[in-house]
Amino acid sequence: MTKITKDLTYHELVANSIRVLAMDGVQKANSGHPGLPMGAADIATVLWTQFLTFNPIDPLWPNRDRFVLSAGHGSMLLYSLLYLAGFELSLEDIKNFRQWDSITPGHPESHLTPGVETTTGPLGQGVGNAVGMAMAERWLAERYNKPGYDIVNHFTYAIASDGDLMEGVSHEACSLAGHLGLGKLIVLYDDNKITIDGPTSLSYSDDVSGRFEAYGWHTQRVDGHDPMAIETAIRLAKEETTQPSIIACRTHIGYGSPNKQDTSSAHGEPLGDEEIRLTKENLGWPAEPTFYVPDEVAGIMGQVAADGAQRQVEWEELYALYCDAHPDLADEFLQAIEGDLPDGWDDSLTSLFEAGKSMATRASSGAVLNELSMRIPNLIGGSADLTGSNKTRPQGAKHLSRDDFSGRYIHFGIREHGMGSILNGMALHGGIRTFGGTFLVFSDYMRPPIRLAALMGLPVIYVFTHDSIGLGEDGPTHQPVEQLMSLRLIPGLTVIRPAEATETAMAWRAALKNEQGPTALSLTRQGLATFDRTRLAPARMANLGGYVLSDVDDPAAILMASGSEVHIALEAQAQLAGRGIDVRVVSMPSWELFEAQPVEYRESVLPAHIRARVSMEAGVTLGWERYVGGDGIAIGIDRFGASAPFQEIYQNLGLTAEAMVDAVVKLLD
Amino acid sequence: MTKITKDLTYHELVANSIRVLAMDGVQKANSGHPGLPMGAADIATVLWTQFLTFNPIDPLWPNRDRFVLSAGHGSMLLYSLLYLAGFELSLEDIKNFRQWDSITPGHPESHLTPGVETTTGPLGQGVGNAVGMAMAERWLAERYNKPGYDIVNHFTYAIASDGDLMEGVSHEACSLAGHLGLGKLIVLYDDNKITIDGPTSLSYSDDVSGRFEAYGWHTQRVDGHDPMAIETAIRLAKEETTQPSIIACRTHIGYGSPNKQDTSSAHGEPLGDEEIRLTKENLGWPAEPTFYVPDEVAGIMGQVAADGAQRQVEWEELYALYCDAHPDLADEFLQAIEGDLPDGWDDSLTSLFEAGKSMATRASSGAVLNELSMRIPNLIGGSADLTGSNKTRPQGAKHLSRDDFSGRYIHFGIREHGMGSILNGMALHGGIRTFGGTFLVFSDYMRPPIRLAALMGLPVIYVFTHDSIGLGEDGPTHQPVEQLMSLRLIPGLTVIRPAEATETAMAWRAALKNEQGPTALSLTRQGLATFDRTRLAPARMANLGGYVLSDVDDPAAILMASGSEVHIALEAQAQLAGRGIDVRVVSMPSWELFEAQPVEYRESVLPAHIRARVSMEAGVTLGWERYVGGDGIAIGIDRFGASAPFQEIYQNLGLTAEAMVDAVVKLLD
Repeated sequence: MTKITKDLTYHELVANSIRVLAMDGVQKANSGHPGLPMGAADIATVLWTQFLTFNPIDPLWPNRDRFVLSAGHGSMLLYSLLYLAGFELSLEDIKNFRQWDSITPGHPESHLTPGVETTTGPLGQGVGNAVGMAMAERWLAERYNKPGYDIVNHFTYAIASDGDLMEGVSHEACSLAGHLGLGKLIVLYDDNKITIDGPTSLSYSDDVSGRFEAYGWHTQRVDGHDPMAIETAIRLAKEETTQPSIIACRTHIGYGSPNKQDTSSAHGEPLGDEEIRLTKENLGWPAEPTFYVPDEVAGIMGQVAADGAQRQVEWEELYALYCDAHPDLADEFLQAIEGDLPDGWDDSLTSLFEAGKSMATRASSGAVLNELSMRIPNLIGGSADLTGSNKTRPQGAKHLSRDDFSGRYIHFGIREHGMGSILNGMALHGGIRTFGGTFLVFSDYMRPPIRLAALMGLPVIYVFTHDSIGLGEDGPTHQPVEQLMSLRLIPGLTVIRPAEATETAMAWRAALKNEQGPTALSLTRQGLATFDRTRLAPARMANLGGYVLSDVDDPAAILMASGSEVHIALEAQAQLAGRGIDVRVVSMPSWELFEAQPVEYRESVLPAHIRARVSMEAGVTLGWERYVGGDGIAIGIDRFGASAPFQEIYQNLGLTAEAMVDAVVKLLD
Repeated sequence: MTKITKDLTYHELVANSIRVLAMDGVQKANSGHPGLPMGAADIATVLWTQFLTFNPIDPLWPNRDRFVLSAGHGSMLLYSLLYLAGFELSLEDIKNFRQWDSITPGHPESHLTPGVETTTGPLGQGVGNAVGMAMAERWLAERYNKPGYDIVNHFTYAIASDGDLMEGVSHEACSLAGHLGLGKLIVLYDDNKITIDGPTSLSYSDDVSGRFEAYGWHTQRVDGHDPMAIETAIRLAKEETTQPSIIACRTHIGYGSPNKQDTSSAHGEPLGDEEIRLTKENLGWPAEPTFYVPDEVAGIMGQVAADGAQRQVEWEELYALYCDAHPDLADEFLQAIEGDLPDGWDDSLTSLFEAGKSMATRASSGAVLNELSMRIPNLIGGSADLTGSNKTRPQGAKHLSRDDFSGRYIHFGIREHGMGSILNGMALHGGIRTFGGTFLVFSDYMRPPIRLAALMGLPVIYVFTHDSIGLGEDGPTHQPVEQLMSLRLIPGLTVIRPAEATETAMAWRAALKNEQGPTALSLTRQGLATFDRTRLAPARMANLGGYVLSDVDDPAAILMASGSEVHIALEAQAQLAGRGIDVRVVSMPSWELFEAQPVEYRESVLPAHIRARVSMEAGVTLGWERYVGGDGIAIGIDRFGASAPFQEIYQNLGLTAEAMVDAVVKLLD
């Protein structure tokens, strides 16, 4: 007969249910990580039953607390909690752990599973996301709350592992969190002293509390299996409103397993049937059936869920009153939360620019951003300490600080990776459209969060300036060569490299219209003449990703390019015309947008019968074969750049109109 | 008349010479960063005149102290020091700052300029490199020093800026440095309170000393313009032999400039002629000529250089005695320092494997590494906490620890970025061949140091396992899709993705033979049958990067693939043969090695007249157009992966022999 064999507290019933579901789920899948869920079950139980405000019926209620499992490999902890709390995640889903098409993949994925706030697994990212969520909460609270109407008022909690805290991104994000005094961010550190390789003493001896004190955090240490101590610590952390908090919870990985607790073998593989039997016995659980959860747990968690639903009802009542008292703000808040843009947000963007005038696309971007910033109140962003270079700061935009969070500009510091991870957190929170800038070459520092933004489908915008050898003297360490193409490789990321000001305006429009994923803008340092759109194709054609910029009757060849090199292609077109060779020039600001067009359109731009094709881009050529075809010539830079005035580098590396002319002549011969 | 207008100490003469060269050099180039050289001139002067042991005549003397300017934008500090100290860097070179073909590029490049120990500019990297250099020193000392013969015994110094310490890689590397107790590593923190965006207070309020104490470092704070205080601090840091040291030196950016000192405008642009005039006046310097250095400075620095040369003479005398006392070790040391491999190091690598046996290439790699490790005593490396998964730990290899540095295995912790940067430092130091492992997907975390290894031409080896959806249940966060192609984009990096055990042996051989740059190995989690080389092409063909693995008379089409997908191509070949269609199978383990072959060879593998070509790789298709040509079909994964048993993912994403068969049939129709 199925029954609990020990006299267990309500807390123990819930915590052990998590342990059992984790063990059995991993065993059934024959892969996964039981150790963390078992070790962190007490922390999570205290948090979820006594503190976390959520409503399983409406997992997207804007004022819910946010919970991030940064150590995503412990996904069964989260799935167990979601199941027990009554989210739309069934026991069947738990049993389908790590199977094709399930909503319980190996690591939590926010776009798949209701109640999963962010996709984690790559370590450190969740911590950064949590910082971003707490920043978003505070910014929204600052903007929308009014006396008596705290419509934005929630906490952000994260569970982080040793691995999360060893990763550099945790340094970047937590240092900024301390600087900004994010009092409603609470990190529970699952201090279990075990990593995959063995005891943390093999590689790690940080005094974590000392480290976080140095960042300006409030720190505590508790026994991670003492519910009272955990409860007290979380309460104290909540009471500390001017600093983020970290609670180091000393836990035992695989807690309850007689032979595997405190060993790295509990980390990432099934415990095995026999050890599960022994563990269940030890926990006071019946050996059979598997996935057994006592009825009391449903009752306990049902009450928690009901409380959460009630909190949402109260919030909705408050919000209704707020709508009466502050109708304009309420409208704006609603629009922001729903991710909509204000009417007319993109009016007259292209009319900002004067044909012929030379302007770096980073400068055009800055001008567009000024306009957008005036029209879109919840567009906020910043730069990783390259504000003046990236032109990311809208005119008159105040920066946010610990003392005044109403600013719309963020000085991220020299923290590209942290910035990327924070941008994801802000986007996940909702209510904000975000952007962040750095040099294109330093997109390498933030590839992991860019990838995750793409996987999650977050509408984050990256402003990557100084996008080629065109940055000149700073030299090869600062000159991107492979970055542009390597960003194009990331599924779901839209990369746009405008050729001049009007294409830049279109690029920003496309970026803001893209609600399904991130967009990377690639912008020049050097000046580029604004196209005369009366002579060339209209600017709106840039929305199609690739378009015939300048055509001729019956072109003998096609020149194609992106960004600054489009100007070289136009010059080559003129030179070729002088020789009696008529060629088409195609501007290719965005491969992703182009490939989203119907095949007929693409064929009209690049007709199959024109096989003489020459491309130019100030980056690696690998990839351009897609468009130049087997017979074409791709001109680019298959080496690192060099330190010199940029015109000389272009000349010396052969990125010239003459090179395009020669290539066309060669192909036509 | 040219003369110094104030009564200056020797220290001031040297420090002000640096300031003047930096100001004038940046002004002449009309770009660059005068602020850091001017601010850090006092620190650098004390270090270079009183502590740093070097010999300008032989900048590669193995036992020199290492000096890393992590804040590479302050390159004029380093160039000025090298020029003043008599390295092969002339005043003409200083005047050619940031010009085409000069040895004084915008950021220091170790492969260009004698005396530059590492290429810096991307922030944080130099700190990581310095940690790696100190680790290499200690490992070599542990192995080669004998009582009375301290032939390896030097310090590693680094100057780091706010930006270096904000970057996450500094956390990773410095945490490990503290853990390992690197007593001969001394970081001078140029604490100038200014970043590009303005005062550090905009984004940064770390208690840096507290942070580093939490890592187990020895910390001090000094006035960075007080030579006596700096001297005392460095002396104390040297005396502390069990912990790395950081000295926070409070400096003033642009020191000496009446109007720009302590402002961000001193950071990254020329001061302007008038401000330079005022600054020179303030420093007691004549306004003209530019680049003026008083004769006394040549005398002072000449003495420093002579002392260094004398130290080398003494070291060479000691080394000669060591050769007599410990001839075998001396031979081994010499071979290690010269980067040579022992005779017979690659004997019988391929004979390790039995045809037909199923073995993941990560396991084959582990087996090869066991062999290599026995034969190459200075091959050391580790993993970022995935030792068992990466199979990077040779049998019986002890790990190094603060108490015993003789181990040859490094537990890097969950610190991919730090690992990459440390590997670079170890390779730069010399005497060691290094490797480091993680999952391929997490190569994203360490792209910046991989890029720098490629730029510097360092022979670092990356062991990237779990190289596709073939890792199965861990899901899309852990399944690389774009990483393989994106690594191929990095100029100078050789990427090898072997198809099975014998190709894996060849891959390791190629990696170790590659002394001109880094090599990335891409290895499977899942088992793959070892080729029967009596039926297929011989294993040594894999050295050519791409080769005909299985041929037919007059092939109708070519199937090509890398890694695990080669097996699918072989299966498709058999299925096609069953239909009477004879096709060639080409294995493409390394595009870089293949492209280094003569055009005739490449044409023999992929003859232009065979246009029916189908490729398969479990990653993005972008790039494969290079080989399949305009008429071919590239099969791959242009989306993120999924969590499920790997066979199901292959099936569901269409990576099957049937898909290749269908593609060939379609092309031939």
